[in-house]
Formats: sequence, C-alpha cells, structure tokens
Amino acid sequence: MAAVVDVVIMAAGKGTRMKSSVPKVLHRLAGRPMAAHVLAAAQALQPRRIVVVTGHGAEQTEAALAAAAAPGTDLRFARQMPQLGTGHAVRQAAPLLQGDGVVVVLNGDVPLIAPATVRRLVDASAGARLALLTVELPDPAGYGRIVRDAAGAVRGIVEHKDATPEQHAIRETYTGIMAVPAARLHGWLERLGSSNAQHEYYLTDIVAMAVADGVAVEGVRTADAVEVAGVNSPRQLAELERALQLRQAHALMDGQGVRLADPARFDLRGTLDCAPDVEIDVGCVFEGHVALGEGVRIGAHCVVANARIAAGAVVHPFTHIDGEAAGVEVGADARIGPFARLRPGARLGAEVHIGNFVEVKNSTLADGAKANHLAYLGDATVGARVNYGAGAITANYDGAAKHRTVIGDNVHVGSNSVLVAPVTIGADGTVGAGSTITKDTPPGALSMTRGRQVAIANWKRPVKTPRR
Amino acid sequence: MAAVVDVVIMAAGKGTRMKSSVPKVLHRLAGRPMAAHVLAAAQALQPRRIVVVTGHGAEQTEAALAAAAAPGTDLRFARQMPQLGTGHAVRQAAPLLQGDGVVVVLNGDVPLIAPATVRRLVDASAGARLALLTVELPDPAGYGRIVRDAAGAVRGIVEHKDATPEQHAIRETYTGIMAVPAARLHGWLERLGSSNAQHEYYLTDIVAMAVADGVAVEGVRTADAVEVAGVNSPRQLAELERALQLRQAHALMDGQGVRLADPARFDLRGTLDCAPDVEIDVGCVFEGHVALGEGVRIGAHCVVANARIAAGAVVHPFTHIDGEAAGVEVGADARIGPFARLRPGARLGAEVHIGNFVEVKNSTLADGAKANHLAYLGDATVGARVNYGAGAITANYDGAAKHRTVIGDNVHVGSNSVLVAPVTIGADGTVGAGSTITKDTPPGALSMTRGRQVAIANWKRPVKTPRR
Amino acid sequence: MAAVVDVVIMAAGKGTRMKSSVPKVLHRLAGRPMAAHVLAAAQALQPRRIVVVTGHGAEQTEAALAAAAAPGTDLRFARQMPQLGTGHAVRQAAPLLQGDGVVVVLNGDVPLIAPATVRRLVDASAGARLALLTVELPDPAGYGRIVRDAAGAVRGIVEHKDATPEQHAIRETYTGIMAVPAARLHGWLERLGSSNAQHEYYLTDIVAMAVADGVAVEGVRTADAVEVAGVNSPRQLAELERALQLRQAHALMDGQGVRLADPARFDLRGTLDCAPDVEIDVGCVFEGHVALGEGVRIGAHCVVANARIAAGAVVHPFTHIDGEAAGVEVGADARIGPFARLRPGARLGAEVHIGNFVEVKNSTLADGAKANHLAYLGDATVGARVNYGAGAITANYDGAAKHRTVIGDNVHVGSNSVLVAPVTIGADGTVGAGSTITKDTPPGALSMTRGRQVAIANWKRPVKTPRR
Repeated sequence: MAAVVDVVIMAAGKGTRMKSSVPKVLHRLAGRPMAAHVLAAAQALQPRRIVVVTGHGAEQTEAALAAAAAPGTDLRFARQMPQLGTGHAVRQAAPLLQGDGVVVVLNGDVPLIAPATVRRLVDASAGARLALLTVELPDPAGYGRIVRDAAGAVRGIVEHKDATPEQHAIRETYTGIMAVPAARLHGWLERLGSSNAQHEYYLTDIVAMAVADGVAVEGVRTADAVEVAGVNSPRQLAELERALQLRQAHALMDGQGVRLADPARFDLRGTLDCAPDVEIDVGCVFEGHVALGEGVRIGAHCVVANARIAAGAVVHPFTHIDGEAAGVEVGADARIGPFARLRPGARLGAEVHIGNFVEVKNSTLADGAKANHLAYLGDATVGARVNYGAGAITANYDGAAKHRTVIGDNVHVGSNSVLVAPVTIGADGTVGAGSTITKDTPPGALSMTRGRQVAIANWKRPVKTPRR
Repeated sequence: MAAVVDVVIMAAGKGTRMKSSVPKVLHRLAGRPMAAHVLAAAQALQPRRIVVVTGHGAEQTEAALAAAAAPGTDLRFARQMPQLGTGHAVRQAAPLLQGDGVVVVLNGDVPLIAPATVRRLVDASAGARLALLTVELPDPAGYGRIVRDAAGAVRGIVEHKDATPEQHAIRETYTGIMAVPAARLHGWLERLGSSNAQHEYYLTDIVAMAVADGVAVEGVRTADAVEVAGVNSPRQLAELERALQLRQAHALMDGQGVRLADPARFDLRGTLDCAPDVEIDVGCVFEGHVALGEGVRIGAHCVVANARIAAGAVVHPFTHIDGEAAGVEVGADARIGPFARLRPGARLGAEVHIGNFVEVKNSTLADGAKANHLAYLGDATVGARVNYGAGAITANYDGAAKHRTVIGDNVHVGSNSVLVAPVTIGADGTVGAGSTITKDTPPGALSMTRGRQVAIANWKRPVKTPRR
Repeated sequence: MAAVVDVVIMAAGKGTRMKSSVPKVLHRLAGRPMAAHVLAAAQALQPRRIVVVTGHGAEQTEAALAAAAAPGTDLRFARQMPQLGTGHAVRQAAPLLQGDGVVVVLNGDVPLIAPATVRRLVDASAGARLALLTVELPDPAGYGRIVRDAAGAVRGIVEHKDATPEQHAIRETYTGIMAVPAARLHGWLERLGSSNAQHEYYLTDIVAMAVADGVAVEGVRTADAVEVAGVNSPRQLAELERALQLRQAHALMDGQGVRLADPARFDLRGTLDCAPDVEIDVGCVFEGHVALGEGVRIGAHCVVANARIAAGAVVHPFTHIDGEAAGVEVGADARIGPFARLRPGARLGAEVHIGNFVEVKNSTLADGAKANHLAYLGDATVGARVNYGAGAITANYDGAAKHRTVIGDNVHVGSNSVLVAPVTIGADGTVGAGSTITKDTPPGALSMTRGRQVAIANWKRPVKTPRR
C-alpha cells in the first residue's frame, strides 16, 4: 500500500526580479498562474491535504489558488511573515501536517513539475527515506550540488559558493523538490538553525540531519530540465512559456494529428480538443476551452477562445472568437472571416457564413444564414437562410437595456438598414436597403422606410481654395 | 548521349502516424501535396514516363497528381494493393516500364529532392550501374547503413537492426532513392523474396543481387539532409515546412534583394516575384502567384494571394488580399489597409486608396479613387478620383443575381449611402449622406433621399432601473 | 584629461549585394538607417566633429544623416568619388580633421557598435597609440587576422588570402574600427599606396607604418560579435535585425519587468517606455515613441506607434494605433479593440471603449465615451459618457475641407446615423437610428430624420432561375 501523501507548496516569495506588484507565483504561464500549475500537479497525486505557504501578496495568492483548486480538495494556507528561508516556510506549514506518510515539498515557481516525477519521488521516500529530486545541468553554476559517496548514496547538498573545485565539477543539482518522511519532519524542522550569512533557515539542512540520523537519502533523477525549471524573472518566465508551448504543440501533432503550420508560432492557454484532420495556420492563439471538429481549418493569425467549432468549418485569417463564459458555437461547414468577430453567446448553425467586419454577439443563426459584410448582430434570433445585408445593424440597446431582434426564415435584410429592437421581421420578408425598422413587419412583405429620391442639378460641391 | 529516364514514384503508403484520412503523400508542404513536389522534381528530369504507384487513397492521389502534372507528361498509375513492401511496389510499376535506360525510384513522402541531385544519380547509373543516393546523418539510428569495402565501393545496405556494432558507427545511410539499369530491373524484381519478419519484398535486396551479378553499385552522396528527409508524422511535416520556408526566404533575400523583417516569420505557398526594393514585414503569408513591383512595402501580418501589386504601392498591416482565379490588381502608388480586404476581380488603378474595414470584390477603381473607411464595393465600376464615403455600400445582390454599379469620374458618394444595383451615378455628381439610391442619377447633380430633420424636445431615453 | 575626439564614418559604399537602389548605409535596422545608428554611437562620444564620407547615393545619405543628427552636432560630409578603398575614403575626410587628439574610424554598415566599446578604443589610443578593435570569431574565414608577437603586442593585420596556415588558425580578427593618433594620421594617409590586386588604398596599411614608426599598436578586444557585425546583404540585415530585436526584448524584460509572451515575436522600432506590470502578447510591433502605463496589456498581433497608453488600459488583439506626428493618447482603464484603429490626434479619456471595426482620427473622447462597433469618428469632440452607436459616421469631409462634429455629454447616437459636419449634437440628446443630421440639435432632444415605415405585402423577390 502506498504511503499517504501531504503536499506543501512554497508560495510566499516576492520575486523581486519580476519587478511586479503581482506575487511571483501568480504570474501566468500558458494563461494560468504558475502556482495553479503546481496545485494541479499536487492534486494529481491525490494527496490527503495540500498546504500552501503564502507571504508576499498572501491574500491574492490564497484567493487565486482557492479558485483554482478542484472541488473537494483539502486545501489549507499557512502564512510565512517575514520570510526567513525555506526551512522557516515549511515550519509554518508543519502544524497543518500530520505525523504519518510522506510530505512532498513543491515550489510555486517551478510550475511544470510532472505528477509522474513526483510520484517517483514519493515512492522513493515511502515514508521511510528522504528523497531529493535532482537534475543534471549542462551548466550547474549557482546551483546546489548533490554529493554522493563512492557507492552512489547521497551524502549531502553543497551550495555552489561552498563547493570545492572537485564539487564544482558535479553536474547533478538539487531541484528544490523533496519528499520527507512525515515522522521525521517535525523533529528536523525544530533542529534547523539560522547561523548563516543570510540568517535564514534552510530546508536543505535536513539532508545532513538525515545522514546523521541514519535515514537513507535517495537522489531521484529527472532527465527533464524543463519540469524543474524555476522562474525568477520575466525572461525565465518567457523561456518556460516557449518551452511549454512547444511541448503542447508537439503533443497535439503527435497525439491528435493536428497539422500546425509552425509549432513555434502556436499558443495554447487552456485546452484544445481536436478531431482528425484539423489544420492550424501560423500565429494562432487559443484560450480557455476550445474544441475543433474533423477537418476544421483555422487560418493565419486567429484568436479563438471558449468555442466549439464543428466538422468542416473554415475560419479564415484574422478572426477573433471569444465565447467567455457563455461560449460560442460554430456549426458544421460554416465559413467565418476573415476579420470576423464572434462574441459570447454566438451560436451559428450549419453552413452559416460570417464575413468580413461582422460582429455577432448573443445571437442564434439558423442553418444557412449569412452575414457577409460589415454588420452587427446582437441579441438576435436569425432564421434559416436569412441574408443579412452589408451594413445592417441590430440596434439592441436603448440606453438602458438590451432587447431582442427576431428575423424569420428566408428574410433578406437590405444594406445599411437598422432593426430597432425589440422587433420581429416576418418570415420570407424583405427589408429595403437603408431602412430603419422600428415596428414588426409582416411575413412575405417588403418593408421599408425611404424618402423619395431627388436630384438637385448642377450642384457645386465646395472646392479647395488653392493656397497662394 | 544521356540515358533515357523513366521515373517511379512510390505513393501507396497510408501514413498511419499522420493520423489522417488524407493519403500521406497528399499532405501539403508549402501549400502543395508532397507528391506534387516529387512529381515536379521528376518532370525536371524530362523523363520518358512517370509511373506513380498508388495504394491507400489511390483515387485521391491519382486525381491530385493528374491535376498537378505539366501538360504532355506521360504520367501513369499502378496500384499496389495490398502493400507488401518497396520491392512489391516497383513490381507493380514494372509492366509500365521498358527495358532500356535508367529507372529512377523516388518517394512521394520525400518531397524536397532536388532535380540536380537526381540528375547526378542518373549520370552515376548511366543505365549500367546501380546508383544509390546516400546521406551522412549525425544520428543515423534507425536508418539502413551503406557498407563500403576498403576501396570505397558499395557492398550493400545493412538495416539498423541487423548491423554489427562496427556498422552502427557508419553515418552514411540510404535515402530510399536509387537509379537502376532498366535492363537489370525486371530480373532483379523477379528474384525478390519475402522471407523476412514482415514478409515484405524489399527493393534494397537488389543491391546484393547487383553485387552478386557483378554490376557496379555507386553511392552518390548528398550533403543536404533536408532534400532527402522523409515525412511520417505531422511533426516531421512541420519541421520540413519550416526548413523549406527558411530556404525560400533566403532565396528571396539573396536572389531578389527582398528585405524580410524576419525570415522565420515568412510563409510562401506558391510563387513570389519581386522587383527591387521590396520590403515585407513580419508575419506575412503569400499564396498562389503574387508579383510585387519595385519598392512595394507589405506591412505586418498581411495575407496576400493571387495578386499583382504595382510599383510604389504600400499595403498596411492586417490586409487580406486573395484574387483566387480572377486575380487582384493593385495600381502603382496605391495605399491599401490597414484592415482592408481585396477579393477576386478587384482591379485598382494608380494611387487608389482603400482604407480600414473596406471590402472590394469584382470591381474596377480608376486612378485616384478612394474608399477610406467601412465600405463595401462589389460588382462596381468606379471612375477616377471618386470619393466613396464611409459606410457606403453597393447593394449588388437582389437575392437572385448580382448587378453592377457604375460610378462616374469625380463622384462623391456620401457616408452610409446605399447604391442599389443596377444603378449609375453620373459623373461629377454627389450622393447625399444616408441616401438609398435606386435610380440612375444625373451628372453633376446632388442626389439624395432624406427625410426632414426633426427634434422631439425633452425626450426621455429609457433609464436603467437601479437594482434593489 | 581625455583626448579630444573626431569621428570619421565610412558611408560611401554601394552595397551591391543589397540589390537595391537605396544606399547601403540607409537600409533600416529597427526602423532607423544603419548609418543613423552609427551616428548616434558617435554622438555618444561627444566628439568635436563628425565627418561622414559619402559616395554612392551621397545626397540621400547626407540628407538622412543631417536629419538624424542631434542639434548642435558639428557634422560634416566629405565625398569619395570614385571609391578607391578605405584609405582613400579617410583621405577625403582628412582636410576636415585637425592635427590633435584621436580620430575614430567607424563604419556606416556596422550599426550596433556600442559607445562604451568605442570609448575603450579611444582610451587605448589616447592620441598616442593606434588602437584596433578586434573580435574573436568561431569561424574567422575571410576576415583579416590580428597578428601578435610573443609578448602579445599587435604586429599587423594579415588578409585571409595572404595568411599562412598558422595564421589561418588565428581567430582574432579586425573589425574595421580603429582609433588613430591625429598627429600621425595625415602622414600615414599620404604614404598609402595602391599597388595591390584591386588598386585600392587600404587603411589597414597604416598598421605596418605604425609598427615601422615605433608607434604602439593596441588590439582592443570585444567579446560581442553582434556589435561589430557588418551588413552586406539583406540576409545579414535580417540576422542583425533579429539579434537587435532579441536584445531589446531582453532589456525590456530585465530592466522594466515587461512580460513578453514571446521575445522572438516582438519588434520595436523606436522607443518603448513601460511602467510596471505591462504585458505584451505575441506578434506585436511598436514604432516611434510609445509609452505604456502601469498594468497595460497589449493583445496579440497589435501594431502601436507614437502613442501614450495610460495605466490599466487594455488593447485587444488586432488593434492598429499610429499617432504619427500628432500622437495618440489612450486614457486610464480604456478598452480598445479588437480590430480598432486609432489614428493621429485620437485622444481618449479614462474608461473610453473603442470596439471592433471602429476608426478614430483627430478626435477627443471624454471619459466614459463608447464607440463599440463599426463606426467612424473623425474631427470630432465627443463628450463624457456618449454612446456612439454601431455604424455611426461623422461626415467630416465636404470634398474640400474637414469640418468638426461636436457631441455633448451623455448623448446617444443611433445606429447607422450620419453626422454631417460642421454640426453640434446638444448634450443629453439622442440621435435616432438611421438619421442623417445636418443641423445642430437641441440639448435633451430626440433628433432624427426618418421616413414612415411601410410594408408592401406579398412582395416577390427576384428568384434564381434554375439552369437547364
């Protein structure tokens, strides 16, 4: 039977080099706070409890993580003020931990740690051994080195500045992640001292205590430097963002057969589910939850968020879709863009066409409806095969409330007309170009408001006066 | 005299790792099916005949290649069903080959093979020798190694799994491309067996036969791993796409002096002819046939397809041009965009201005005409120096057919007006703002439809009810 | 006391490989001519005089540099026609130089030379020694090697083609940049000969003269190959552009804490001042002078030039802002885009919203004003909390001049209305949808022009004739 696991996430640091008023662990990677990535990795272990140690920006951090946690998670917070080192941080969490099982220490600024790696660490500890996660770095300068004896057993961690020339050559470094036997943790924490240059309590000092106490110390290696990379500056954040984005791109190509025109110009901040034969052109950004049906093609430089796009639909370049909470639905074989914008609550049927400079918000369009040019559809219910002309506008807002426009099947709405909601255009009807429709129109009728066309002969337009 | 050449293109594979219903060789690289790239390379050899071996998706593949072939090409298809290996594939083609000259075997999923390289291979064979195209790979794991004797003569190809440790160190690998003396081919194919783990017929077995028969085997090296790279997965397809795009970018910079703001953010899927001093900003995509005149500048994030843009024209960012079959023409010193869209049949004269949120389709604009803001011009003939106002629309579609709008020279079309086609606006005329013009207007006149302006005093707009 | 400095900038070359009618040194890097970068570096030394040697395209080059020079710079031009080598170039400048201090020779096509490096070179010369700027290159093929004696003193520069095999192994190369004791320069220039294959006068020949004359030759090394990289082709220009852009991106991240989603997809051609917590998404281009307030977020694929954006404002994707000379100002907490365009003279107050397909030019919008969809505001003064409806247009141009539209506080402008300038919409008024307003409207009134709505029953739209 596997040992019970509690997790401590260190999330108190200020992150001075971020030069930001946002707490370091809340800086976003792929659209999510770094600490939320770590929280998700912790949850994947199905731990008994997760204790997050907060400090700088504690309220913000706690609120963000409480919102990010899966329902039912036993998530607690311990505040560390002032911040006196990693050992001091875990001390604040200790009263919330029990004396059995394994305590895993994760870092809120090491966001890409893989659950499988942490699981290996837990197994190496098994509640009996101290397990340190290590990584070999091509350039280990600045990192604490893992010192092993001739038999390969870990004897300690030596800080870079304290290392001998021989130890400087060691490339195996400590990642800041460990799994500790809970039964030992409290005692070790009590014995931590702060007689060092920074007057801080270092959690790594427990390694020497373990060795002294005859507790085995395991070094568990990961070959993946990205999963243990920490973020201390906007530059490191950007580097990790690109590494993660490339991994996501490869996973979509390898796993779902997505054809990406350029994996280095693809951004996913959320989840993207793709049926077979999806093609995504350069420069696209996906956010929230997006699902793309079989054969969907997304053109260059599109932004797509919180949307479901059905099989065969084509999204042309420069299209902006964001369903936010309400979502957007695009029907099968629809044609969207270029330069289209679909906003929350846009629900488009099969073979709907939304063309250039058209905005659709909180509107349902039935199969085969078209709005090809320069138009606004807001709070509208649009019937099948409607042709919504260029420049047509639903005036849905009277200054106080939004009202609904209903357009029956087969209606043609003329160019530059305004439908002043609440209003219904009867099925099979036509709205004359340039009309402002304020009253419901009968089915099958041509409805319009139009003045007589007049011509004033020999009309002189103002002319530019030549400059002297 | 050079030997007569026949070409066999292997295009029967399924490409399971592509995870696609599209046959592997039809996946597109720079906008063209991979097999069409190979076909073009084959055609460059001016062969007597090209035989494509198809299998998975045979009908689709054959249709695509028949459409892609240059007129007059003697292009034949042989079907391989089931697929029992490369030797079996060539066997299907054998009845369509004659007994003289050189048979070149190319692969439909090795799309960037250079004609000059194949020509070297043909010359090495000369109808008398078996010539294998080889490449040295930094990491040859998984590839068949070229085994040479002490004198450098090729003795065979050893599969990775059959190689001795010494042979594993060989970095020269077989590319899958060979040139075979036709007089020998049929006999060798007949002798192929399938007594191996996969029970397949391997074309590479003929190397041993050649050695046994005393036919010289030449190893022709290419230094260019890209031209012999095969595609088996979306990731490999994307890698080859980027390699090709970078080559195209370099060729345009080196050969035509094009200034690319970022060669890594440039995509060309077709042909791009550039006069001197063309500048192309970041993130642009070119498709089909595009020609850019001297000094043309293309702004950031433009998509340009099937268009001719004359000297001195400036295309501002976020412009979408696609002429499709009809083409688009942009005159000298024109100014297009940002956020403009030119569709098929847009023909713009010199110094035409098309501004933001303007769409032009199947319309001719004479020199100096301007449509600067939020407008639609469809099926229109626009005279010189016309000023087509913001929000002006040609209502060209009556629900059944498209009709033409003719606008004379020097006309000013007022804002938010609609020209209901068929209609002619007489030269030097003015259309009043907000008018819907349904009848032809006289030259020089101010034409309009407009109601009297009224004011309803102390009008109370609806007000938001405060929530309790 | 530091030696007085004069600078010679070599800017006469044609740059044949640029394949351009633009003189080589005027090709732009990060939006500025290469020679203007060099001029700025020269000015940072606070020299007595700067002499630019021009030749190909001399008039263009001189005009561009005269325009780029800081006020008060003693900037002179010397023409070199024909171009007979680097020594010949400096000879043309010599009459404009005085006999004291240090003469620094820079190259107009080596644009990223750092002032601090040149200062080191000047200090090494101190008016008494010949100082050569050198760099170690991983692949020095083609470059002149720095030959030092056993004591490390520079003995000469050997051209690649004249180098012995031993000298070919030298990786320290000459950069083309030197500092010469002015008292020696004239004499050395007089002694230059042209008895070489090209019949040119090489400035590097003065090294041998210095050695012969017993003048010490200092080799001053830079570790930064980018600052001494020369540009001879569009490809090299693009490479240097990317190197510079990446440096700028890193500087913004490290120095101002800017969060860039992808440093490789960021372009700055000018200056960007960022308050804390600025976020910039992928694919953005900045030009001219841009200032971003605290917490400003710029969405994907935006182009922003010559603008000040106040704290808390959000710019959504696909927004184009260019203030040109007049500038653009965006108020605190404003929301701009997607698909918005702000043009010169747009001045937006706090919490202004400019939405999709909206263009604003030379207009002031007071706090809380909104233009959310498909609209044009030109030459307008818009009051606080105005709601400018979808499709609304200011008709500001009468064919000869631009006129002003004034919209009072709290006005609602209905959809698809036209405000024909000059015109004033009284405060608290409403403009009915679809109206064309040509006369001033009273405050608080509902103003409109609208025909009666009619319906023609059983109206048959044209129907498509089925093809036979």
